[in-house]
Amino acid sequence: MRPIPGPIAIVGIGLMGGSLGLALRGAGAEQIVGYDIAADTLAQALALGAITRSASSVAEAVAGAACVFVAAPVGLAAAIAHQVLAVAPPDCVVSDLGSAKGVVIDALSADERARFIGGHPVCGGERSGVAAARGDLYRGATWFLTPTAEARPELYERVYAVISATGARPAAIDAEVHDRLMALVSHVPHVLAAALIHQAAATAPSGREALRSAGPSFDDLTRVAGANPPLWADILIANRGAVVEALREYRGRLAEVEQQIVNRDRQALIAFMAGAADGRRRLRVDDGPADAIVEPWEIVVGIPDRPGAVSEITTALGHGHINIVDLVLRPGPPGGVGEFVVRVSGAAAASAAVERIAALGVRTHVNPV
Amino acid sequence: MRPIPGPIAIVGIGLMGGSLGLALRGAGAEQIVGYDIAADTLAQALALGAITRSASSVAEAVAGAACVFVAAPVGLAAAIAHQVLAVAPPDCVVSDLGSAKGVVIDALSADERARFIGGHPVCGGERSGVAAARGDLYRGATWFLTPTAEARPELYERVYAVISATGARPAAIDAEVHDRLMALVSHVPHVLAAALIHQAAATAPSGREALRSAGPSFDDLTRVAGANPPLWADILIANRGAVVEALREYRGRLAEVEQQIVNRDRQALIAFMAGAADGRRRLRVDDGPADAIVEPWEIVVGIPDRPGAVSEITTALGHGHINIVDLVLRPGPPGGVGEFVVRVSGAAAASAAVERIAALGVRTHVNPV
Repeated sequence: MRPIPGPIAIVGIGLMGGSLGLALRGAGAEQIVGYDIAADTLAQALALGAITRSASSVAEAVAGAACVFVAAPVGLAAAIAHQVLAVAPPDCVVSDLGSAKGVVIDALSADERARFIGGHPVCGGERSGVAAARGDLYRGATWFLTPTAEARPELYERVYAVISATGARPAAIDAEVHDRLMALVSHVPHVLAAALIHQAAATAPSGREALRSAGPSFDDLTRVAGANPPLWADILIANRGAVVEALREYRGRLAEVEQQIVNRDRQALIAFMAGAADGRRRLRVDDGPADAIVEPWEIVVGIPDRPGAVSEITTALGHGHINIVDLVLRPGPPGGVGEFVVRVSGAAAASAAVERIAALGVRTHVNPV
Repeated sequence: MRPIPGPIAIVGIGLMGGSLGLALRGAGAEQIVGYDIAADTLAQALALGAITRSASSVAEAVAGAACVFVAAPVGLAAAIAHQVLAVAPPDCVVSDLGSAKGVVIDALSADERARFIGGHPVCGGERSGVAAARGDLYRGATWFLTPTAEARPELYERVYAVISATGARPAAIDAEVHDRLMALVSHVPHVLAAALIHQAAATAPSGREALRSAGPSFDDLTRVAGANPPLWADILIANRGAVVEALREYRGRLAEVEQQIVNRDRQALIAFMAGAADGRRRLRVDDGPADAIVEPWEIVVGIPDRPGAVSEITTALGHGHINIVDLVLRPGPPGGVGEFVVRVSGAAAASAAVERIAALGVRTHVNPV
């Protein structure tokens, strides 16, 4: 295991920030400075060992930091990231943990985006607050990273290394793609479930007993309904562009099916249901266990010392569903070509990665490790 | 256990009809005559012991029957029920097992409705066909019964007794209420799940890996998508009135939430999510284990010998979420008042039942058993 770059600062110490501190402490991080608007939260975080030192301001927390995580509620992430970037050292990378990425990135200048790598760990817990923090919250979770074209490669590498130390699986993705994806697979599903509960509560004609007797589909559809209302209101607002677009399209799809039912169009309805069965199968195809032990391969990518080089490559690999197990940057001379070493699992992933990178017009060579 | 009224005929021997035969055979039914359009299905049903005799026509199957179950696909249930009623003995009760009840009842004359008690056991299996039949399919399942005002009390009692023998829990409900309930808790959820899968398959921007990483809500929402397309097409068409109405209302609810998101109306969105949390809690309140051992109480209801008397009482108890454990009819003299004995679990249910029945203007007295 590589040493964890540090010092690390965490701004906002709730379930997510506290768990991040515990995970990094557990992985050997030496200095974790915490800041939170609530003084008692900070004291609690210190007592729990989630941070090694508390700061009394954002500026004090990020002074001397190599890596800052903004773990504030999603509605405040953009404002706090902006505030952190204004006072962070020039070579410090700033990240966040919110479920909507465009809203943060859009609020930053190009210069700020060079030092900001948006993040989104896909996990959580029933309870919130630092008291609920646990060091294994991120273990095995996907942690999306959304480097922009302006992002500095060595800062991406650094936040990647820190996140990997939590046991999460970092996955690079374009911010807009991320937001559309999360709208579709998480934000809209929460709306659909809540709307169905409202309708059932308003109209369920014969009450609870009949409802409970009526098979598993209603329970399945409504399991996520109503979790943490203020958090979800903020998520829907933060990701409103993608959520509204997905909801509008979805209503259109329902209207189409409705018309098929009105028309008693059996063939169309069979095709609709069969298409869903196919789609579900395709979406659920298992690529094998995530932690299968396969031969690691190293792909050495020659990259020019310019912004955008890293996000192009990580995004291309993300689109090819190729998981980056590790990455290291070996900078070249100023203005020259450096090396970006990407480690993947197995020969098949390596060959797919080389193909994706070659399509960008970038030269690579490959070594089995 | 009371003896099972017989002989019984089953028309259509697939998963549902076959399982019904096995369950009744297991409970001691002596004569179960089966008919199916496929001769090899009949032979298989005989070999499996799901029926005791095969018939070569509907008329032959129902001749001499006390109780006939139409276990045909839901799209054919109305036509076959009509066909069965035309040839069944005048004192024979006919029932079915389809997921939509209005479509069958609406196709029958008042005379036919006197001898028809629609049914719908809420259960099923992944596989279809008699080979998948099992004697415990109905154990513990809710089996809705939808007696109309014309239904003859003694025929309702008979079908109730047969169904109870399978281990299912019969629950009387108004047919229209049933259809709206099933639209809401089962038929619409299947459409919602299928539509979400279609949208994900069409737009999921970064493929399976990202989709699989994105938490449990998508999996929960789409678990039921695409099961048995022809069956579901037929269910949606059979229950089209209630399904289209529920879908239309649902689209309206989504449009409202969409507008709240566009308006960044945080308070409205919090209220929407919090209302769903409340609704879910209320809908899921547990009334205690279904099989808890509580004192049985008998409510003796004086009912006039006229159509409608039974459906009024069973429907009133259904609306009060009072489960009828058993019922027996003691007919009075022609044109006089008979007794309808309803057994429920526990003093609380008994007192609630008496209140409901009193509200109908019907006299009762109550005995602990």
